[in-house]
Amino acid sequence: MDMQRFKPNRGHDAPIYLQLYRRYRDAIAVGKLQPGDRVPSVRSLASELNLARGTVEMAYQMLTSEGYFLTRGPAGTVVSPRLENLGEPGYGFASSSFAPPRSCLGADAGQVRPFQLGVPALDAFPRKTWTRLAGHNLRTMDTAAMGYPDPTGHEPLRRAIAAYLGISRGIACTHEQVFVTAGYRGALELVCRTLLRSGDIGWYEDPGYLFARQFLERAGMRLEPVPVDAEGLSVGIGQQRAAEARFAVVTPTHQSPMGMALSLPRRLQLLEWAGHRKAWIIEDDYDSEFRYHGRPLPALKSLDRDGRVLYSGTFSKVLFPGLRLAYLVVPEAQVEQFKDTANHLCGPGSILLQATVTDFMDQGHFARHLRKMRSLYATRRGYLVDALMQALGSRLHVQPQAGGIHVLAKLTNRESDKSLAAAAQSNGLAIQALSQWQIRRTSHGGLLMGFANVTEPEMAKALICRLAAAIQSQ
Amino acid sequence: MDMQRFKPNRGHDAPIYLQLYRRYRDAIAVGKLQPGDRVPSVRSLASELNLARGTVEMAYQMLTSEGYFLTRGPAGTVVSPRLENLGEPGYGFASSSFAPPRSCLGADAGQVRPFQLGVPALDAFPRKTWTRLAGHNLRTMDTAAMGYPDPTGHEPLRRAIAAYLGISRGIACTHEQVFVTAGYRGALELVCRTLLRSGDIGWYEDPGYLFARQFLERAGMRLEPVPVDAEGLSVGIGQQRAAEARFAVVTPTHQSPMGMALSLPRRLQLLEWAGHRKAWIIEDDYDSEFRYHGRPLPALKSLDRDGRVLYSGTFSKVLFPGLRLAYLVVPEAQVEQFKDTANHLCGPGSILLQATVTDFMDQGHFARHLRKMRSLYATRRGYLVDALMQALGSRLHVQPQAGGIHVLAKLTNRESDKSLAAAAQSNGLAIQALSQWQIRRTSHGGLLMGFANVTEPEMAKALICRLAAAIQSQ
Repeated sequence: MDMQRFKPNRGHDAPIYLQLYRRYRDAIAVGKLQPGDRVPSVRSLASELNLARGTVEMAYQMLTSEGYFLTRGPAGTVVSPRLENLGEPGYGFASSSFAPPRSCLGADAGQVRPFQLGVPALDAFPRKTWTRLAGHNLRTMDTAAMGYPDPTGHEPLRRAIAAYLGISRGIACTHEQVFVTAGYRGALELVCRTLLRSGDIGWYEDPGYLFARQFLERAGMRLEPVPVDAEGLSVGIGQQRAAEARFAVVTPTHQSPMGMALSLPRRLQLLEWAGHRKAWIIEDDYDSEFRYHGRPLPALKSLDRDGRVLYSGTFSKVLFPGLRLAYLVVPEAQVEQFKDTANHLCGPGSILLQATVTDFMDQGHFARHLRKMRSLYATRRGYLVDALMQALGSRLHVQPQAGGIHVLAKLTNRESDKSLAAAAQSNGLAIQALSQWQIRRTSHGGLLMGFANVTEPEMAKALICRLAAAIQSQ
Repeated sequence: MDMQRFKPNRGHDAPIYLQLYRRYRDAIAVGKLQPGDRVPSVRSLASELNLARGTVEMAYQMLTSEGYFLTRGPAGTVVSPRLENLGEPGYGFASSSFAPPRSCLGADAGQVRPFQLGVPALDAFPRKTWTRLAGHNLRTMDTAAMGYPDPTGHEPLRRAIAAYLGISRGIACTHEQVFVTAGYRGALELVCRTLLRSGDIGWYEDPGYLFARQFLERAGMRLEPVPVDAEGLSVGIGQQRAAEARFAVVTPTHQSPMGMALSLPRRLQLLEWAGHRKAWIIEDDYDSEFRYHGRPLPALKSLDRDGRVLYSGTFSKVLFPGLRLAYLVVPEAQVEQFKDTANHLCGPGSILLQATVTDFMDQGHFARHLRKMRSLYATRRGYLVDALMQALGSRLHVQPQAGGIHVLAKLTNRESDKSLAAAAQSNGLAIQALSQWQIRRTSHGGLLMGFANVTEPEMAKALICRLAAAIQSQ
């Protein structure tokens, strides 16, 4: 392929990455590039055109997120073969009014979008090891793995999780208390169906994890917003507003999205309230694994003497979300009740992936991967924060956080974070507004950005440049 | 290994298979056979000891179903490595009071038990092809497959299902109407959450599929039992008893568990009622693929002009249950509503298996496998029916059925099918009582037995012999 035809024009008004993006889009539109055609690697195109890798990467990422390109891991990147089926009129295929394919416009099409929250560094996942372990499990699949799987989860995985939680989170539990679930929503579903009833009142962190809030509200729960401050959930305010609540949902290690930890006095206060009122605490420990300075805190569950805490963790952030695997640890006294519910829910699916996660943990790959990710995320967080400060330091103030895979940048003035986020989103950036995560509007707005897939300083700069342009007119 | 030490004693009271079973169990108990040790193949042991293959197979199946043996497909059978972790006191390991490991006692431990309902012929599944396709998908996994999967299902699979249903079930639908779900319960969940409310009244076939009944009752539905006769669901009786019902659940192709088809006049009557009352019909087409004589009937959905039918099919019976994949076809007018619900449910899980099923369908393996299974199941059904007639013909009357993978044997007198089923179950046979599937007791009881894994006439005889012995004392 003649790569020179993609060479951007430095005198041109549009940024380089955008020119590159448009040339590719046009080449596909007029049929010079066909579905399935392989495109040059970022590295080789950057060196051929004498551009920064981050610039090319940015253009490629836009093309991928909009469905023009398909990345095939080590097999390279190709023009999406799916475009082939979309040659009907209305898509303007092979015409100048070319629009991205419909199927790729949705937020859930699978492709990771720039700054998407809750997605770990997919480029750094040890695919080879994973493929080897999964391949082995696939070839040795026995008839037990073909029959109806255990709805509480694959027993060896439940044992591996119990052992891991004991060592890394200070939680003493047996595998009988561990339920493997289809993501965090599977865990919430299990709790709702076993212990709660439609109409039950629960404390919910404000601001707090948007998705779980919507899930619980759909399940008929009445959520009482309880503000978070520098020590996390304000247990006292919760008691004033709804002492009779049946449950509380908390993110004690690393509040979602603010990032602070729940202080020890608050932890004890919360446990005392729950013990006294026979209320349930749902501990969402979604990304406790990632902490870049300070000592990691043990889980709230480790202090739970009265058996009131339902502990949930997920493999979405430490492995990858496509696995759809999370877990729930329930108090010993409720194990039988939960088993009964699990028998009537969808469960965590096929044994194949569960067995592969087990091997990954048992053989030490899990611990090794976590160690690597901790230092990688500290670095990538730095790329994003530096770029943010440089380009938007006057409008945004980045909150210091000890962990997690997203950054919260608060607005320094009273402008609407929702309209900024909307402008960013319409430019292909998956940024979310803090106020969307709030139940009651209390403070300045902010922007939430995932940084795990910001692989280079140049990429961070280019993306932030795009953000700055998008919000300039706001 | 000296196989002769397993040689049963022909003068002994106990049947040969039982002697063989006990010798193996004892050899494991005293440590002569260690976890992970390979055991001889059925064929070679049978020839060495001069026994019928069915006899050896039967003993092996008992040992497998109780967790002593683990079959590894082409890699042969081994003493279960899981026994290794169970050497604590109380299990009587290496003592004479040897009991099967706890984890294997549950009904859901994965191992297929003799006569288990709803499990296809696992020995006849084309594993090699499957492993090749899944391995390919595993190696070419792109970042899209690692991100959050589409909660409505992998689009290429939805397209493949829509095409398949058009050809084989007469259903005209687009892939937008198809939702991939985590088994049939995932499909029911989707319907309940989108169209129904707790307290809604629904017609339910009596007798009818036990599991779905329990699921719907747990979801708060009030089920009105509607009897089935030779033409299937008595629509007239439904209208008399609960004309105002919000929904009806039917198995029109092959009533579960009685086996008859819903007649054309009844189909039209049901559709008219639903159209008139704006009620929903849930069509469970769970094993329509298996029909051994007569013409296969098109789906009820193919006659649905008013958009009242929610059609559900599953891969559990045509591929294997461990996949946990089913699908739901919804009327065009409800697509957006269902998408919204799907966004808040657990969804069908990882893309890997969905992509593998897609390849399996697209490359013609699916159609080939179905063709093979149709003739195999006709044969295996024959093995079971012959053995039943011979040994228990006076107590049981086998119902003629045109399809499915289970047999219904009605009791010729008024004895309790529940106590017979209980006796069978305590002897390791996963037989179910018809009356458990009935909401109102109406007729003679019966026994439900899956035959898909009855691989040989000798095995059928041995299992029925075991059943006869178990119920002799009843």
